[in-house]
Amino acid sequence: MRMYDIIQKKRDGGALSEAEIKWFIAEYSAGNIPDYQMAALCMAIYFRGMNLEETTALTFAVRDSGECLNFSEIKGLRVDKHSTGGVGDKTSLVVAPIVASLGVKVAKMSGRGLGHTGGTIDKLEAIPGFRTDIPVDEFKQIVNEVGIAIVGQNATLAPADKLLYALRDVTATVDSLPLIVSSIMGKKLAADDDCIVLDVKTGSGSFMKTPEKSRELAEWMVEIGKRAGKRVRALITDMDRPLGYAIGNSLEVVEAIHTLQGNGPADLTELCIALSAHILVLAEKGTYAECEEMAKKAISDGTALNTFASMVKAQGGNSEWILNPEKFPKAKYSHTVTAKEEGYIVGVDTENYGVASLLLGAGRNTKEDVIDPTAGIYLCAKTGDKVCVGDPIAILYSGSEKGFAAAEERLISATRIGKDAPKEEPLILDVVE
Amino acid sequence: MRMYDIIQKKRDGGALSEAEIKWFIAEYSAGNIPDYQMAALCMAIYFRGMNLEETTALTFAVRDSGECLNFSEIKGLRVDKHSTGGVGDKTSLVVAPIVASLGVKVAKMSGRGLGHTGGTIDKLEAIPGFRTDIPVDEFKQIVNEVGIAIVGQNATLAPADKLLYALRDVTATVDSLPLIVSSIMGKKLAADDDCIVLDVKTGSGSFMKTPEKSRELAEWMVEIGKRAGKRVRALITDMDRPLGYAIGNSLEVVEAIHTLQGNGPADLTELCIALSAHILVLAEKGTYAECEEMAKKAISDGTALNTFASMVKAQGGNSEWILNPEKFPKAKYSHTVTAKEEGYIVGVDTENYGVASLLLGAGRNTKEDVIDPTAGIYLCAKTGDKVCVGDPIAILYSGSEKGFAAAEERLISATRIGKDAPKEEPLILDVVE
Repeated sequence: MRMYDIIQKKRDGGALSEAEIKWFIAEYSAGNIPDYQMAALCMAIYFRGMNLEETTALTFAVRDSGECLNFSEIKGLRVDKHSTGGVGDKTSLVVAPIVASLGVKVAKMSGRGLGHTGGTIDKLEAIPGFRTDIPVDEFKQIVNEVGIAIVGQNATLAPADKLLYALRDVTATVDSLPLIVSSIMGKKLAADDDCIVLDVKTGSGSFMKTPEKSRELAEWMVEIGKRAGKRVRALITDMDRPLGYAIGNSLEVVEAIHTLQGNGPADLTELCIALSAHILVLAEKGTYAECEEMAKKAISDGTALNTFASMVKAQGGNSEWILNPEKFPKAKYSHTVTAKEEGYIVGVDTENYGVASLLLGAGRNTKEDVIDPTAGIYLCAKTGDKVCVGDPIAILYSGSEKGFAAAEERLISATRIGKDAPKEEPLILDVVE
Repeated sequence: MRMYDIIQKKRDGGALSEAEIKWFIAEYSAGNIPDYQMAALCMAIYFRGMNLEETTALTFAVRDSGECLNFSEIKGLRVDKHSTGGVGDKTSLVVAPIVASLGVKVAKMSGRGLGHTGGTIDKLEAIPGFRTDIPVDEFKQIVNEVGIAIVGQNATLAPADKLLYALRDVTATVDSLPLIVSSIMGKKLAADDDCIVLDVKTGSGSFMKTPEKSRELAEWMVEIGKRAGKRVRALITDMDRPLGYAIGNSLEVVEAIHTLQGNGPADLTELCIALSAHILVLAEKGTYAECEEMAKKAISDGTALNTFASMVKAQGGNSEWILNPEKFPKAKYSHTVTAKEEGYIVGVDTENYGVASLLLGAGRNTKEDVIDPTAGIYLCAKTGDKVCVGDPIAILYSGSEKGFAAAEERLISATRIGKDAPKEEPLILDVVE
């Protein structure tokens, strides 16, 4: 086989065979195909797309490019929840403890944030002492004992995705449905879970800007997950507004704890309960209504929060902070952004909220950037709220004052204020099974 | 500027600015833009195209990526003829001596063959002693004394094209109109000629498989040449059949000599006279009819052949061979391909004729391949000819017998035989001024 012929075939609109796809992923992973040929292929895929068969083959090839995990030593059904990435999305910190407290096992590998989206691992590292690089045997042991552990992604997991994503990121070929599907599901399927619930974000803060595109992404991921023998479903949820009020690592951990205490923002609580209920349904814990009740009860009776605290303790973190979140230090500097005009917030550009947070030190432009755990944004007003001139819209937090001006400008220009209250949009738009 | 933004802009169908195009060619030439980003951009250009302004800017940027030649020491108008590449195309060896013998200067830099197309430099190197790597001062001196010299392309001429072409060649991005235009004209415009006649091939043996596409290519090249201050016109000529009967280096030199002696194949002679006449018109030597007569006379009175012999002598070659072409050695082995069915040759796949010749040793698969100057194909029957079973179609020549079977198979399958004589098609389809 020749990479040239594969590029040309895709360029001319042909469907690649399973053998061709397996071959180029294996050869690219082995360093035998140069980046420039893979970049040309990615751009051809961007324009020509891939059908479901090709995308399945690509996903499986990515999964098989490294070690597939074996969690058979973990007793009981293993579940996972994955978000396609959003702004202020701390649902994993809430959902994972809820479902673990209800008897399913969460052996979770999470990523770090890049660009405008945050990462669960960065958030957890805002907890002093918390270790995210735990050896696999200890990881399994914690899951067996506590019911849950969350660690950083193993470097040997789907290494082809790491190479491909780095290349797509610099060649403007990220926004391609088959490449997104194979990247997300290639990694997910390499982990040894029985049930996966996907939170597919839609709107200005996500990969997919329209509900139709997001639905297509969800359907393909669910179908490919099923083909791999997993129980999968996907929720399509709104990312035209940040989730909750907190954006930034320790701010989000605190908001997650409040949610586990029953005092979280309404939107965040609603989504966490729904995601938990869907996971529990996949794990055959009952009907949806029953599972929803169980999730709510895990919050109201404190078992979910205790499970989170136990996990933090088992992973070396200070669990006192989880039970007393006021212990989390505030950033050295803060700055209040106020409304420049009167009216309703009719919509926001969520992605630029994420960028504003990044400018304050809460995110990374490149993989090498160091995160300030205290940095971020606390929103005082969200879509649908009425503001008068001078009313606070958000409080910016940072270890340095130098990002405030740029972050404020981003935030203001990303916030659209109008005369009339906007129509209230549902948070959960659809469920794909 | 960021290469990422340029890729994304083109990917999304935007027109790149002159500043952006200058920037990425300069930075790519300097090694500051990685091949993978340039490959992604080339594929985006393949899909989205470039408008005339963008293509002009790209052509000029390629031209300016290296040294532009200065031939002001050469007295008189300097002319050039360029073919987009064909099979059996030895017109340069005929046209250049004709026009030089009529008082215009030919300071020609030519390329080597790659793939199924031959290169003028390879053909000239079939003449014993002929030097194609002559220092520039000596080159200019020969042109002033003899009126003509033909050397290999200077490495400092449009180096961005060299880099880009090598990349396009392995990423399936050769067949893109703006990239072809900027590659050909970027090099041509870096040479210091006053008049350029382009021979744009169309059909199975060329870049552009349809007359419409070829016409577009011709129009863009002529327009951009004019914008650079040159006198330019283009002929669109048929490459659905090889030109003349000879394919392969020494075979083609001998056929070119026969043509300069007035005994060449009709199609080759017709095209050489037309190309010469158009060059002479651009050089203001007279009307087209007058120039055509002058070209014919340069053949009939032997001045063109003598000019060719003088050039060969000045460049170190044995001019005896030019005046007595029977001195060129025949290949060690030959093999006659015969017709397997009776009928008219209704059409041929010229590209595969070129590949068959390459398989015999007359061409290169990679730049490192060494050419056998005696290898090639002499056609005994061409499109329109009637053949009976057993009639010779072609004689294959090679220094080794091992390529005969594969070359014969290519040739047979590339030759379509039918019941009825095909319609006679004109060789010169159009002239673009």
